[in-house]
Amino acid sequence: MVVYLDNASTTRLHDKVIEAMMPYMSIKYGNPSSLHSLGREAKRVLDDARESIKDAINLNANAKVVFTASATEANNLALKGIAYALKGKGKSIVVSSIEHESILEPCKALEREGFKVTYIPVDSNAIVSIDAIEHALRENRDTILVSVMLANNEVGSIQPLKDIVEIAHRYNALVHTDAAQALGKIALDAKSLCVDLITLSAHKLYGPKGIGALCINSNIPLEPIIHGGGHEYGLRSGTQNIPAVVGFSKVVEMSREFIDVYSSRVKALRDKLERSILESIKYTRLNSTAKDRLPNTTNISFLGINGEDLIIKLDEHGICASTGSACSTLKQKESHVLRAMNLSKDARNGSLRLTLGIYNEEHEIDYTVSVLEKVVNELRKISPILSSE
Amino acid sequence: MVVYLDNASTTRLHDKVIEAMMPYMSIKYGNPSSLHSLGREAKRVLDDARESIKDAINLNANAKVVFTASATEANNLALKGIAYALKGKGKSIVVSSIEHESILEPCKALEREGFKVTYIPVDSNAIVSIDAIEHALRENRDTILVSVMLANNEVGSIQPLKDIVEIAHRYNALVHTDAAQALGKIALDAKSLCVDLITLSAHKLYGPKGIGALCINSNIPLEPIIHGGGHEYGLRSGTQNIPAVVGFSKVVEMSREFIDVYSSRVKALRDKLERSILESIKYTRLNSTAKDRLPNTTNISFLGINGEDLIIKLDEHGICASTGSACSTLKQKESHVLRAMNLSKDARNGSLRLTLGIYNEEHEIDYTVSVLEKVVNELRKISPILSSE
Repeated sequence: MVVYLDNASTTRLHDKVIEAMMPYMSIKYGNPSSLHSLGREAKRVLDDARESIKDAINLNANAKVVFTASATEANNLALKGIAYALKGKGKSIVVSSIEHESILEPCKALEREGFKVTYIPVDSNAIVSIDAIEHALRENRDTILVSVMLANNEVGSIQPLKDIVEIAHRYNALVHTDAAQALGKIALDAKSLCVDLITLSAHKLYGPKGIGALCINSNIPLEPIIHGGGHEYGLRSGTQNIPAVVGFSKVVEMSREFIDVYSSRVKALRDKLERSILESIKYTRLNSTAKDRLPNTTNISFLGINGEDLIIKLDEHGICASTGSACSTLKQKESHVLRAMNLSKDARNGSLRLTLGIYNEEHEIDYTVSVLEKVVNELRKISPILSSE
Repeated sequence: MVVYLDNASTTRLHDKVIEAMMPYMSIKYGNPSSLHSLGREAKRVLDDARESIKDAINLNANAKVVFTASATEANNLALKGIAYALKGKGKSIVVSSIEHESILEPCKALEREGFKVTYIPVDSNAIVSIDAIEHALRENRDTILVSVMLANNEVGSIQPLKDIVEIAHRYNALVHTDAAQALGKIALDAKSLCVDLITLSAHKLYGPKGIGALCINSNIPLEPIIHGGGHEYGLRSGTQNIPAVVGFSKVVEMSREFIDVYSSRVKALRDKLERSILESIKYTRLNSTAKDRLPNTTNISFLGINGEDLIIKLDEHGICASTGSACSTLKQKESHVLRAMNLSKDARNGSLRLTLGIYNEEHEIDYTVSVLEKVVNELRKISPILSSE
């Protein structure tokens, strides 16, 4: 048995998504840039997919949906694209300190090129400080872009994006949000948020790996980071991955259904899991109790334990979990999110992220709690910290 | 009936490739960055794929195979990656004038940033001038990179890469080659070519769209263009597209079989098609008769005809063809390759690219020749050029 509780890392393709993709993996293999019928069919699919995505998240009619290979690429395109296009206007960028590495690393690259990046602190629930954003904007009048994720990938905190947009626009800064974790889990209405650029991902929501999108409101200037044949409005060259576009479009179309399942069944399971762990296992700490939180995510610290040891032990019992972001390979380093939340070193070391999905069932939750009780107990017996108490 | 003669644009997935990919599109959906068993399985697949590719094209054991979303991205990474890493050493880059737009457009971007790019002319067969390369290297002693494609995508000419590498290395310049069209059609031996960086693509060879690779010899310095979690040796961040990696690995493993089919059956069909057209239709011109030419590619000009009109007419008869590169969307512009070959405007306007694949059969070739005779005749009747003769 595999109990998969790592849905923030990646998800299993939905059957309806595979079904939608299959014809484009066999007979409908045209290149959308070709003039002939097979090519024109692919072009139609591409255009339809853009419209589906615009409808699903309520983008403006003339917004651009630029397909990329990943949310990481979309985040890079947003940050560098805006920075290079607007460097004549200003060189200040404001981001939260709990962004994904695909935001933070491009920021570091831009700093090396002379841009100034301000990292906004968060509170103990991993909610970004609005006052600190306003302060940063007041101090850096040449701010061209504010980028704050809609929902955090490690603890699930949902950011007050509408307020952030309001302030940023008052200071004439554009706003980008990485909605990779939010899509299909909470409502996403681009018009109501008034946000200028949105990053989406498919494989976090039962869609294919290898596809993401940057949605851009009209008249936002952007420099491409991948040059070539001029695909995707000249903003991202390379033959479009039509099967993946079709799969992506399908999950976005299904995103309202997913939100219903997440807000009811998945949330109930997550709440049960969380409550059971906190009640039945001593020296645990729920990281982030933010009022607005993703319905599928929990992050709990088991004091006196190393999170990675816990992952390995859980894996021996068929349970797939994570210490935090799965997105940084070969860099088993401490979570910058938990550090920004001001957690103690012990709490940071012993953190476990459990992220549920639509396929999880109640017996899996019960099983996970019972395995956790057992393995936490085992690990604490050999823990140099608690055993010395 | 569809007769697909646009295999240089994209190809239909091979059944064995779909078969290899399917488990990774369903139950084996792990993220290779995850520590648990599903993740470790994905990581193994990724490592194995790199080894398969190294074996298949005889890369050095310690070469890096960096997976990208396309050959376009790999070309961007090669050019910008080397340029940014070595800008302290030199700011000169040398490329051929018949490169794909995913080389030429990054070059233009680098020129805007202060790099100097020298574009090497070709002869009437679209073979790059070795003397001109040596001249460029002599004149620009700070050349850091020479990039010349292995086989041209529009006319199929195969470049004297080994000679180019020898000269470039004499002047301490690195050499990159875009082998997107060459892979699986002609022998590709990285060690024998001594080339430093190689771009590969899957979807030109019955593999999935959305995946390419940049193969990099050890100790070549390179700056990433997509920053984030540090995947792919820190050179290209973003969750790896495991199903596509598996499919790509499969076609590369099969590439020697493909070469056999191309060099015998496909070449015989191409030769028959070419000969029949030139013999049966007047005012035609074979563009490139290079001794070394891709076995599946022909490019023929029909004087007095507009190539795009010809594509539309062929399409009405179920034949998929192209005027040249399919890789430039919404930019129906003249071929820069045919211009570099010094073709007349009439010949450039009336060019048709036919690129065969392993699925083509002899009756399709006969059918195509008969349709071409008919539609060329029809179009010439209304041609303002020939009708005025």
